[in-house]
Amino acid sequence: MPNHLLKYYQQVRARSEEICAPLQTEDYVVQPVAEVSPPKWHLGHTSWFFETFVLADYQPDYQVFNDQFNYIFNSYYETVGKRVVRTDRGNLSRPTVKEIYAYRAHVNQAMQKLILNQGTDAKLVKLITLGLQHEQQHQELLITDIKYILGHNPLLPPCTLLTDSELPSSNTWLTINSGLYTIGHSGQGFCFDNELCQHKVYLNPFQIQKHPVSNVEFLQFIKAGGYQNFEYWHSAGWDWVQQNKITAPLYWHYVNGEWRYYNTQGLTQIALNQAVNHISYYEASAYAQWKGLSLPTEAQWEVASEQLNWGQRWEWTNSAYLPYPGFKKLPGAIGEYNGKFMVNQMVLRGASIATSPGHARVTYRNFFHPHERWQFMGLRLVRNQ
Amino acid sequence: MPNHLLKYYQQVRARSEEICAPLQTEDYVVQPVAEVSPPKWHLGHTSWFFETFVLADYQPDYQVFNDQFNYIFNSYYETVGKRVVRTDRGNLSRPTVKEIYAYRAHVNQAMQKLILNQGTDAKLVKLITLGLQHEQQHQELLITDIKYILGHNPLLPPCTLLTDSELPSSNTWLTINSGLYTIGHSGQGFCFDNELCQHKVYLNPFQIQKHPVSNVEFLQFIKAGGYQNFEYWHSAGWDWVQQNKITAPLYWHYVNGEWRYYNTQGLTQIALNQAVNHISYYEASAYAQWKGLSLPTEAQWEVASEQLNWGQRWEWTNSAYLPYPGFKKLPGAIGEYNGKFMVNQMVLRGASIATSPGHARVTYRNFFHPHERWQFMGLRLVRNQ
Amino acid sequence: MPNHLLKYYQQVRARSEEICAPLQTEDYVVQPVAEVSPPKWHLGHTSWFFETFVLADYQPDYQVFNDQFNYIFNSYYETVGKRVVRTDRGNLSRPTVKEIYAYRAHVNQAMQKLILNQGTDAKLVKLITLGLQHEQQHQELLITDIKYILGHNPLLPPCTLLTDSELPSSNTWLTINSGLYTIGHSGQGFCFDNELCQHKVYLNPFQIQKHPVSNVEFLQFIKAGGYQNFEYWHSAGWDWVQQNKITAPLYWHYVNGEWRYYNTQGLTQIALNQAVNHISYYEASAYAQWKGLSLPTEAQWEVASEQLNWGQRWEWTNSAYLPYPGFKKLPGAIGEYNGKFMVNQMVLRGASIATSPGHARVTYRNFFHPHERWQFMGLRLVRNQ
Amino acid sequence: MPNHLLKYYQQVRARSEEICAPLQTEDYVVQPVAEVSPPKWHLGHTSWFFETFVLADYQPDYQVFNDQFNYIFNSYYETVGKRVVRTDRGNLSRPTVKEIYAYRAHVNQAMQKLILNQGTDAKLVKLITLGLQHEQQHQELLITDIKYILGHNPLLPPCTLLTDSELPSSNTWLTINSGLYTIGHSGQGFCFDNELCQHKVYLNPFQIQKHPVSNVEFLQFIKAGGYQNFEYWHSAGWDWVQQNKITAPLYWHYVNGEWRYYNTQGLTQIALNQAVNHISYYEASAYAQWKGLSLPTEAQWEVASEQLNWGQRWEWTNSAYLPYPGFKKLPGAIGEYNGKFMVNQMVLRGASIATSPGHARVTYRNFFHPHERWQFMGLRLVRNQ
Repeated sequence: MPNHLLKYYQQVRARSEEICAPLQTEDYVVQPVAEVSPPKWHLGHTSWFFETFVLADYQPDYQVFNDQFNYIFNSYYETVGKRVVRTDRGNLSRPTVKEIYAYRAHVNQAMQKLILNQGTDAKLVKLITLGLQHEQQHQELLITDIKYILGHNPLLPPCTLLTDSELPSSNTWLTINSGLYTIGHSGQGFCFDNELCQHKVYLNPFQIQKHPVSNVEFLQFIKAGGYQNFEYWHSAGWDWVQQNKITAPLYWHYVNGEWRYYNTQGLTQIALNQAVNHISYYEASAYAQWKGLSLPTEAQWEVASEQLNWGQRWEWTNSAYLPYPGFKKLPGAIGEYNGKFMVNQMVLRGASIATSPGHARVTYRNFFHPHERWQFMGLRLVRNQ
Repeated sequence: MPNHLLKYYQQVRARSEEICAPLQTEDYVVQPVAEVSPPKWHLGHTSWFFETFVLADYQPDYQVFNDQFNYIFNSYYETVGKRVVRTDRGNLSRPTVKEIYAYRAHVNQAMQKLILNQGTDAKLVKLITLGLQHEQQHQELLITDIKYILGHNPLLPPCTLLTDSELPSSNTWLTINSGLYTIGHSGQGFCFDNELCQHKVYLNPFQIQKHPVSNVEFLQFIKAGGYQNFEYWHSAGWDWVQQNKITAPLYWHYVNGEWRYYNTQGLTQIALNQAVNHISYYEASAYAQWKGLSLPTEAQWEVASEQLNWGQRWEWTNSAYLPYPGFKKLPGAIGEYNGKFMVNQMVLRGASIATSPGHARVTYRNFFHPHERWQFMGLRLVRNQ
Repeated sequence: MPNHLLKYYQQVRARSEEICAPLQTEDYVVQPVAEVSPPKWHLGHTSWFFETFVLADYQPDYQVFNDQFNYIFNSYYETVGKRVVRTDRGNLSRPTVKEIYAYRAHVNQAMQKLILNQGTDAKLVKLITLGLQHEQQHQELLITDIKYILGHNPLLPPCTLLTDSELPSSNTWLTINSGLYTIGHSGQGFCFDNELCQHKVYLNPFQIQKHPVSNVEFLQFIKAGGYQNFEYWHSAGWDWVQQNKITAPLYWHYVNGEWRYYNTQGLTQIALNQAVNHISYYEASAYAQWKGLSLPTEAQWEVASEQLNWGQRWEWTNSAYLPYPGFKKLPGAIGEYNGKFMVNQMVLRGASIATSPGHARVTYRNFFHPHERWQFMGLRLVRNQ
Repeated sequence: MPNHLLKYYQQVRARSEEICAPLQTEDYVVQPVAEVSPPKWHLGHTSWFFETFVLADYQPDYQVFNDQFNYIFNSYYETVGKRVVRTDRGNLSRPTVKEIYAYRAHVNQAMQKLILNQGTDAKLVKLITLGLQHEQQHQELLITDIKYILGHNPLLPPCTLLTDSELPSSNTWLTINSGLYTIGHSGQGFCFDNELCQHKVYLNPFQIQKHPVSNVEFLQFIKAGGYQNFEYWHSAGWDWVQQNKITAPLYWHYVNGEWRYYNTQGLTQIALNQAVNHISYYEASAYAQWKGLSLPTEAQWEVASEQLNWGQRWEWTNSAYLPYPGFKKLPGAIGEYNGKFMVNQMVLRGASIATSPGHARVTYRNFFHPHERWQFMGLRLVRNQ
């Protein structure tokens, strides 16, 4: 089992670096908006997680790589002390990319030793698994942040392309009967604390789309003046549209009379039969409103999930990110992982083409603020009866 | 029935003016923060509501009092055209208070005529009822806004006192069994559109406090350092506490080593056995976290409501303000009443001592942003099992 | 001499109230932008000046009217303690207008007694004179602030009209020879400390316009696209134009294809042969740049002043507000009057139709930030050789 | 002469790259505050200057390196088209450092050819000289920006040290008689347009310090509570101190009870007998006020300059940055060089240890906003009589 764990550890850790392989040194450094962290910060922070929450507790002779890194790579753990203000991450030229790769190697070496020696300790295995799942979350952020960094550079430099699948030209409506259903994670296998507390929900009958909404469908909303008509929008969404002069999803450019899209290979034509991407909750909700339909709740989504074609986009639900009944925060720093964000955000379900292999589950609860859209975000519709 | 409706109309409309009776002219004008509107604006806006949504449609020969008032007194109805930016309401010295009272009289006269002539038209009756319920909502805002205006003046001038009742010295836990319950409004009698779509919910068993949390209990949280310890707070709540240097509920002042409270009669001692007042969702939630307990969901609150001592404070729930299953926005301007606010806000249940008589219902869904606390807001706890 | 001083005192004090006579109570209260103070604040602050700097020192038995007024009516004197944040002045409904008039009467009564008893004390006379000159400065601010309050109300209510004189249809160029000139105040008669330190300046020969620039001339700048062409503007001025979408002087409205002007009587035609009014330094400077000419320095203006037609507009000069050689701040609170503002502002010379009678001098140094334009501000040009 | 010019060109261009030699790639990229540009931007911008203002006009067959670079490297020339918003410079990872060095080489090659072919054309020589003087200005900015980037990194990484000379332990007062003096540049040899228009000024007699104010003297101001006492400060300076919690010059750190200084080699002791460094105009002025003395005007400084020990710090004067009498903006983009900044800034005279060799002149007019202090800025005092 330690060998299995070690292999798992090495695979996950290696993938972070593979994602960054096409980058130039300069691409690792910048933070064009507050929510996009520099790639080198992600690489350091995920290593700091193992150093702080695993090695410091389980490896008594562990030598901290650099004791100022706690200040630099702590993301939001108040328990673990002061930290660089989030918006300053892109102002730090040091540590260099090279030093951060050395930091990763240093942590990996200590982790390898630890796993081989104590890799049967159930509590430790659980903690390491959390660290790897955490790193996988940052892998998706690496992809979205790199896309933002390059996609907002006036030179629009190309980078690795993610493969997107085609949708059928017409969608299908699935019918779900009313009844009492159970949602949430059973606790077998890994899950985050916010998925626990499996519980019953009663649902009215509803119909749900088998496939996510496509670009060609979303184009109709744009052409119908959807971004110019307040009546489809939340009040806060309409303010957001006005203040930011939003007229299309992120990465769409109107060039010579037609919409084009930055897909990490440069500006290209809109792939009409792919799922719409990079829209905010406000846009998803306005689209549904325009159609006279709704976004699914997270319970609806989860109950229907077996029959859905999902995994291309994180899908906005109409559920706010709130604790499941009986949810309790874990003690200590790990307890800051999820619970303290359970306000002002909306749940997204599914996974995306940027999600790391093996990281998706139908009980997974992703969450973002309603205006955010730099993740691979789309939607599907329900018809409530 | 027209006579009955007329009497209802007159009572409600008169109460708005009674609330303002103790004011000096200057008190009608100011807007110390964006969410507190000048009292004269409330008096005008509620009249504009009748002029715009009732008289303009039902009274063909109605003479608009002043055609610029639509621009001045429209609150947020995009359908009805441009309007004064919300934060500019307190920058307008004109129309004067006297002119606004004349405006009210003008509208009242036309409404009286309309009610007597057409007061049996069911659709009209419904619309007038909505206008009166709307005015009652603004009556509560008048009280809270006047309290804010005087309570943030360095002279702390006195004003009318609302009577608050005492709580028993110890609280009682009520037990609710698990099961399928129905919540929402049946549609008999008046309700807002957001209460409709009565539906079933499944609840786990839980216990809920009979009485709201008192000042003496909340003082213990303060004394235990609750405002200084991040672990009880949402991340966004902790930021709010830090940025605004919050150390106690609104209107609390620390004077010569003890907490005092502005209760509209000047600074007074904390009434230990009254329900805590003027706390934000963040504070309510931190208090619950400190106790190791939870805020009720709105379903829990409604299901238990028959057994609760409620009506002194709007009570923060742990439910986000979202549409009930099947909710549809009404067409036209009236459809902007509720639906477009269903994001980023939390539901409060119950009513407060500032709520107008006859305006409370157990299905009522009030909603505010998590940091807002100038309403009469408190909490009660649940223990989830 | 005490009688003479008393009469002077009474005339000046009465004029402040005369300026406010046409106001409604509500007009006294609001502060639509930070730099516009509520008229009631001006009335209180000018009285507080006498209470704090005269009565408290010279009248041992003086009863302070209300000891919280020091907090409310202190403008910027750090020496005298804490004060209401400037932007909060318009948030205070109390003290009421009536109370402030009572405050004025209370101060006037005490001042009358003081003047009759001690009105020959030279130091006291000087201090009272300063207080009256200070009040005259606030009288001009009262006029400009009232104009702003009413001129930014959507109802554009009328108020008292100031009489403006006509300019000749063509301007005249006066020639000033090069040489050593003396500028600054000799110290005979009242002046502010910033005018003292009379000193020599050497001027190159120049020509200066006899009359200020007129509306008809400024309209040509507008029609020539002056507001759309960066090359006439300072970099900071161009940013200001862009951010605030400035296309004309303050109070100009483009209605049905022509420019109209709010002159306190409502919207009216542009008075073509009156001096252009309500322009910022940035606009004055851009106009000069467009003409290929310059604004005068304050020395040029003062040296030429005897031959100029001045007094209708404060005229922007191209001199920054800096101390004259040898300037020293006075000790104590009175020393805060001028010196601490000598950075980031530009000097205006002359006087305006809103300046109080007897308050103008050719050595007077008025000063405002380069973007401000709610005062009665215009310009005249020089040709440097 | 072309050979001489070519050598001059090569020396200046090489020095920019020498300054950057100790940097890591990451150090070239970041922009921790708006006024600090990424070193790679400076390297690109100075090359763009030659490409745009020299090669495009004089070298008909010149191949632009990358036509998007005009958008990326234009600093503020409205004449030359749109540009990256200044605060976005640090958000651009591309072009890479390597590409920018290739850009420099490309421009250098074309410039070499141009100089050898047309290097006797007087107008061209003048333009190239301007480009090289411009590059020298950016060399000083490179030094100050690199210092800021490293000096605000929590790791405080070391970099090249500039040599600072010691001051004598006591200062000397020089006396200048009153009289008519001439200031400004005669036009012989290179100068910027803002130094032209040599003109006469009359000065009262004054005394001026031979040496700049030292750290030991400035420490006395700190110890005397100078940063805590409003009466030494301009009103705007006091606001700046309060809002930014300023208690010492930039790069000073209070560690274990004593002040230390980041001098690009890490934290070190305060060099007591060196000139105080990195203070704003507000601090310079407060220090003078505390001493009961003044900052020199730029005329005083220039008239006394022959007798002064200068060149270690840019010295704040008490003169605002305004045009000399008769100043005219040059036509076209080059006219944007200086004139459009002549508002809201103060003049600094002298030069600093970061100034490029051969770039200093006694008529040089440097200028910054009164709160800026990341340049090598100090002061000396005058006593006006």
